[in-house]
This record gives sequence, C-alpha cells and structure tokens, in this order.
Amino acid sequence: MKVLIYVRLKDTVLDPQGKAVLGGLRNLGFAEIENVKVGKMIELYISDVQPSDKTSEASAEELRGHIKEMCEKLLVNTVIEEFRFEVVK
Amino acid sequence: MKVLIYVRLKDTVLDPQGKAVLGGLRNLGFAEIENVKVGKMIELYISDVQPSDKTSEASAEELRGHIKEMCEKLLVNTVIEEFRFEVVK
Repeated sequence: MKVLIYVRLKDTVLDPQGKAVLGGLRNLGFAEIENVKVGKMIELYISDVQPSDKTSEASAEELRGHIKEMCEKLLVNTVIEEFRFEVVK
Repeated sequence: MKVLIYVRLKDTVLDPQGKAVLGGLRNLGFAEIENVKVGKMIELYISDVQPSDKTSEASAEELRGHIKEMCEKLLVNTVIEEFRFEVVK
C-alpha cells in the first residue's frame, strides 16, 4: 500500500525557499508567476497486512489514525506546517 | 490560478533522506512501514490573464507548456528526478 503525504508551510509562515524559486522563475522570464511555495511530498510504502478479525473499513480507519500519528510525531512540524494525505492503493 | 508540481527522485536513485525518515518511523514503533521516499511539492500561483484572442483550451495547452519548461529549466533535476503536475483552479 502506498500513502502520499503532502506537507506545506502554513500560509502565515514566511517561505524563503519559495521566494528564491520565485526570483529564479522571474529571471527566466516567467513574469506571470505571482508566488511560489515549496513543500514536501512523502511517500510511505506500507505492508498490506490485514488482520482477519477486522473489516476493511475498520482497518482503513486505523491506517488513517496511524498516518496522522506519524505526521504529528515525526514528519510534520505542526507549529509551522500543515498536512494532508491520500491512500493511493 | 494554482498549479501543484510534484517532484520525486526516480526509483533507481538512492534516497538517504527517505532512509533516515524510515529509521525514525521504525524507532517510533511503526514496523509496518517498508520504505519511505521524500520528494517536493511546489505550489505556483499564476496570474489569471487570458488573452481574448485565444480559446481556453489553447491557453490551457500553453500553460502546460510553460509549466513543463519551468520544471525542466529550474525546478527539477531531470537526471535524477521526475515530476507531474496538476492545475488546481
């Protein structure tokens, strides 16, 4: 199973890397760009073990709980960043 | 208009950052994670100027061309990375 986690800086937080990319794009002649923000995309590959005593709905719910926990404990700095994720397959 | 560009290392390229995150998640007890890859998500905010002498289809096509050019010239190292993008609104 593959999970994609998208992490981005909150809108109120300054993004110097984004500003640098914006400058670079403008220097290349792309004047139509108004702003750039640079975030992260984290791909998790998870083993497909589904306990037989659970419905697929319950295990999907559990998976979402696990991913949220991973994000909050390690992957995302929730003070300045926000995240969303999708289970791909 | 907002464009999301997703940049990831090609599958054949080693990802030390991903390996570090994998180790961190396993240390936290998430043993079900098999692999992690860390990529980038770049948000572009583009001014909505649509020339009146073009159909919306032609300008959408032009936009896709521009974004591809930005990726290949600045945003993506096409030797080791691959990208996909979506126009959000």
